[in-house]
Amino acid sequence: MLNFRNDYSEGAHPTILEAMRQNNLTPVIGYGMDEYCAHAAAMIRERFGCPSADVHFLVGGTQTNLTMIASALRPYEAVICADTGHINVHETGAIESTGHKVLTVPKEDGKLTPADVLSVVRSHPDEHMVKPRMVYISQSTEVGTVYTRHELEALRAVCDRQNLLLYLDGARLASGMTAEDCDLIPADLHRLCDAFYIGGTKNGALFGEALVLVNDALKPDFRYMIKNRGAMLAKGWLLGMQFEGLFTGDLYFTLGRHANAMAARLRDGLIAKGYELAYPSTTNQVFAVLDKDQIFELTTEAAFEFTKNWDATHDVVRFVTSWATKAEDVDAMLALL
Amino acid sequence: MLNFRNDYSEGAHPTILEAMRQNNLTPVIGYGMDEYCAHAAAMIRERFGCPSADVHFLVGGTQTNLTMIASALRPYEAVICADTGHINVHETGAIESTGHKVLTVPKEDGKLTPADVLSVVRSHPDEHMVKPRMVYISQSTEVGTVYTRHELEALRAVCDRQNLLLYLDGARLASGMTAEDCDLIPADLHRLCDAFYIGGTKNGALFGEALVLVNDALKPDFRYMIKNRGAMLAKGWLLGMQFEGLFTGDLYFTLGRHANAMAARLRDGLIAKGYELAYPSTTNQVFAVLDKDQIFELTTEAAFEFTKNWDATHDVVRFVTSWATKAEDVDAMLALL
Amino acid sequence: MLNFRNDYSEGAHPTILEAMRQNNLTPVIGYGMDEYCAHAAAMIRERFGCPSADVHFLVGGTQTNLTMIASALRPYEAVICADTGHINVHETGAIESTGHKVLTVPKEDGKLTPADVLSVVRSHPDEHMVKPRMVYISQSTEVGTVYTRHELEALRAVCDRQNLLLYLDGARLASGMTAEDCDLIPADLHRLCDAFYIGGTKNGALFGEALVLVNDALKPDFRYMIKNRGAMLAKGWLLGMQFEGLFTGDLYFTLGRHANAMAARLRDGLIAKGYELAYPSTTNQVFAVLDKDQIFELTTEAAFEFTKNWDATHDVVRFVTSWATKAEDVDAMLALL
Amino acid sequence: MLNFRNDYSEGAHPTILEAMRQNNLTPVIGYGMDEYCAHAAAMIRERFGCPSADVHFLVGGTQTNLTMIASALRPYEAVICADTGHINVHETGAIESTGHKVLTVPKEDGKLTPADVLSVVRSHPDEHMVKPRMVYISQSTEVGTVYTRHELEALRAVCDRQNLLLYLDGARLASGMTAEDCDLIPADLHRLCDAFYIGGTKNGALFGEALVLVNDALKPDFRYMIKNRGAMLAKGWLLGMQFEGLFTGDLYFTLGRHANAMAARLRDGLIAKGYELAYPSTTNQVFAVLDKDQIFELTTEAAFEFTKNWDATHDVVRFVTSWATKAEDVDAMLALL
Repeated sequence: MLNFRNDYSEGAHPTILEAMRQNNLTPVIGYGMDEYCAHAAAMIRERFGCPSADVHFLVGGTQTNLTMIASALRPYEAVICADTGHINVHETGAIESTGHKVLTVPKEDGKLTPADVLSVVRSHPDEHMVKPRMVYISQSTEVGTVYTRHELEALRAVCDRQNLLLYLDGARLASGMTAEDCDLIPADLHRLCDAFYIGGTKNGALFGEALVLVNDALKPDFRYMIKNRGAMLAKGWLLGMQFEGLFTGDLYFTLGRHANAMAARLRDGLIAKGYELAYPSTTNQVFAVLDKDQIFELTTEAAFEFTKNWDATHDVVRFVTSWATKAEDVDAMLALL
Repeated sequence: MLNFRNDYSEGAHPTILEAMRQNNLTPVIGYGMDEYCAHAAAMIRERFGCPSADVHFLVGGTQTNLTMIASALRPYEAVICADTGHINVHETGAIESTGHKVLTVPKEDGKLTPADVLSVVRSHPDEHMVKPRMVYISQSTEVGTVYTRHELEALRAVCDRQNLLLYLDGARLASGMTAEDCDLIPADLHRLCDAFYIGGTKNGALFGEALVLVNDALKPDFRYMIKNRGAMLAKGWLLGMQFEGLFTGDLYFTLGRHANAMAARLRDGLIAKGYELAYPSTTNQVFAVLDKDQIFELTTEAAFEFTKNWDATHDVVRFVTSWATKAEDVDAMLALL
Repeated sequence: MLNFRNDYSEGAHPTILEAMRQNNLTPVIGYGMDEYCAHAAAMIRERFGCPSADVHFLVGGTQTNLTMIASALRPYEAVICADTGHINVHETGAIESTGHKVLTVPKEDGKLTPADVLSVVRSHPDEHMVKPRMVYISQSTEVGTVYTRHELEALRAVCDRQNLLLYLDGARLASGMTAEDCDLIPADLHRLCDAFYIGGTKNGALFGEALVLVNDALKPDFRYMIKNRGAMLAKGWLLGMQFEGLFTGDLYFTLGRHANAMAARLRDGLIAKGYELAYPSTTNQVFAVLDKDQIFELTTEAAFEFTKNWDATHDVVRFVTSWATKAEDVDAMLALL
Repeated sequence: MLNFRNDYSEGAHPTILEAMRQNNLTPVIGYGMDEYCAHAAAMIRERFGCPSADVHFLVGGTQTNLTMIASALRPYEAVICADTGHINVHETGAIESTGHKVLTVPKEDGKLTPADVLSVVRSHPDEHMVKPRMVYISQSTEVGTVYTRHELEALRAVCDRQNLLLYLDGARLASGMTAEDCDLIPADLHRLCDAFYIGGTKNGALFGEALVLVNDALKPDFRYMIKNRGAMLAKGWLLGMQFEGLFTGDLYFTLGRHANAMAARLRDGLIAKGYELAYPSTTNQVFAVLDKDQIFELTTEAAFEFTKNWDATHDVVRFVTSWATKAEDVDAMLALL
């Protein structure tokens, strides 16, 4: 069975698992107060050019988002995102369960613009409505697109003018930042975002997300928030150890580039075969328009996800590549199509 | 440095880590819908004699407690526990942050009695106060004691009469159930509790707790709750795989017995040397009354935790043994004392 | 200054205030356990034909909505409403602050259809998304329209098939149920809704909403919920006394009819003068399209609210009539236009 | 039936009700943006000597407490109070339902000391426990005692040193501040508290509490919080109008003095008759130790509340006086005893 279901179908990059194995029986202090976490945080601060940022390691993306947002917002404050945003659709109301409204703007390409943000702010003028206070974006987005430097700078500018925090969900940051149409560099993120997270789960770790708090106002007591949400891993060093591995020799972005290359190979093959793509993704998610009967037949030989209906006879399916995808699997997939 | 700080200082039992390594690059479906989880759940239902229970795997203890309690209670309902209870003291208000009051009874030995429960229920007679609806106990308790079958049956009886749910926190279930003064068997738990969890983090897993939902009323939509609290692990099979390992060949309770044996060796040594013990623990936590100066000196050679003040010149410290503790370490510790 | 700002600009209908004055110094038991509340509840059960319903009196509409919804839903469950719904726009995230997502459908006329409901349900198929569990509607709606019997029956049918609760916000129930195009009778509500509330604040009371719980599943412990949300009025009899007044001699619907008659007089006058109306309201809210300069001038002589922009030179303003509006004020308003 | 059940058994002081009657049909702007509220707030700032404080009017005490505490605390922060505190016992978990733990200290006299506060702070040293951030006290307390200036200054000092907010619940402020053993003056409160509220419900108003925010950090966006909790009264001027009445000619404290005088008359009579008092109350609550049989007989002629068991043959009952209590009723009560 060919696997293009998602980018979290395998375990960890072998070098990471090997580090865990080698240190398995050495006692380490718990809750992320260990030297692996300290070192991994230092590596991240160095790689992303933000020496004064706080770095916290959490287990998963929804957990990171809800802890971050619940920490940053007062009870009546809301977060703005594209209607495709992970926090809006795929977190089972986790953000609302922390008490905060998610304000959405319909976006075909998954990307918020300054005009979108302004429109939401202007339609919430007083205390009878929630107060927009944060903008949530994803890099890459849920439909595989990326923000460019110019676009992110423009969002930063509107956030500054409207007193909004800008938070970037980097569950697929490696793929997003290494996309061919992304001119952002890691050191741009701390300059343009109040906080962002570096996704490990979907890029070579067993699990783990590194949350980078840039804005000083977001830093105090964050470890209290982590524990308060049940998000503090007892054996926290497992997170530090994995991010140490990911930021050794730039493995993190190397894996992202590989996933993108595999997606490009698949995308090129699909186009060559005359298939239509549903979103202008340049990253590791490929959204193809396939005939419904063909989809039914393919499911016996390949794993992938249904995304949405396209027309009477076609649906959109998603093929996801990852650091573990092999070129021959892509070719085999193309051969099936 | 000798390590008696806690029972989550090492990684996983080697057989578990080896299973993870061997299956590392094989794609598996996410979110706990995989065969490892299904198999581990079946093993647990078999071992605990509850064929109709639902088993869910979560990453950590606080996360399991808050998800469980938030799922079981309506907004005005409260949970009763000993003042030593983990949910009362060491979860940074996680339960209250789900909206529920924790009602406590001062208990030197960490164990609730039916009289304690009744007293709380009777002092909350109407809608101007919270409605007690759940009893939370730990096995073993936070001070190392255990409930016997008779004690647990008595709690069950009062819960039945007062329409209370009984929930058992088994973060240290392996040690608790194999303690010499514990006459409970695994198959007692489903008979006496509405829900309980089997702790993996402190007994051989890298991380992971298996929540067993016995009462049918607690089962519906529990996966929604898990995701809603950010507690659904993307690579959920890592949890299933670990519990498969723990319940293969009764490894789980074997590891608990080992931890208890190491604690008994330490306890016996302490008593032989004339030390006083602060709590009647029979499990893997040993609470010793030490001279303050001595404590200060010991900290350069051994890791352990301060628990509380005892008198003007003495404090209570906690030594914790685990599946990974070696007899020679216990002997070395005793030699230092 | 002519007042068409809203329907809560005056105190209470004089007969109600007089009842409060006459009983002012007679001691009454608190928290709504008094005979006024009991009697008013009986009158409501009788008038609405639902002898087995529970009736609770609360102070305000947002309070009633948040208490009701927080009581009815489990943490991961969501409520569906039109994007114009009061709970979505004008409650400062009160529903989300109880932990629940509000799922919206864009509706120009403020009214949900079965197709809207189905569409939301179908796009939320599994535990990675919230679970739709309640449909929230308003009668009359926020844009002055009303549901007919046929429409409400159709919503009930889809709710039955999809296991959804149907909750009707009756902040403007008097106006809604007496609108010329509303063929519903009071006794229809308990048959078609799981719960509804009868608005007092906007129809003759100083304050107060009567929440009617029809579905038995919604009844247990509701007084706990009221207190838990800070919504239990110490001198609860003030609520009972007011609803006694409102349901004596059918004053409640008589006041609603008056408000509608005043609105119709205004609407007819506007149409006669050639003004366009922005929404097909048949109740006590009139939405007129006015020239922006004209609006600016009118604000010195009349109070009303800006609703939204219409085109480059026009805005929509809202004129609201009430039980206290006089025909001569309507005529004076028309004379100004 | 003689009424000593509580101090919220009657309506409003006649001058207040008369003001409501006279202005009943004059349109006023809603939500507390009116001139009555502005004037009442100015009167309060003047009377309490705090020209820069923000004053907000809410309907009830639990509502005021939960809105205030939810606004002031971050999710992991907790509030310290005596175990007798209203927020701990009699608010049905309202504070916990906003997400915050209530940390209690057992206090027979209902009053926290600096040592109590310090003890709680010291037992919560790190992020594995909640962070104490607010001290909640009541004046008068739930058992009728009062804080003196010296005591309140001492609490302020410990709050300053420990970075704690001091919040005073003044549900019975009129009685508390006019007690013979209370040397505080109104102008002391803003100097010693970060926030306090002036209770209207129990002292001459139909309903209403005036929350005074002294600390600048507590002021921003408080109206958002009020609406977010469903606590913004549509006809907000009803609150302003009532507090205008209460602070005209010092009616507020005059009523408190009357309630105290009636309680003293009752207390003196009880002592003269040889009854024991359970708490050293000097305010409008009298806690008498009565024979159980006598209590049973009295209930047919007088309304009062059971408080707690005293010994095998006696219980403690509470007699409450108010602004509306008549001397002849006190004498009649004494005659019954």
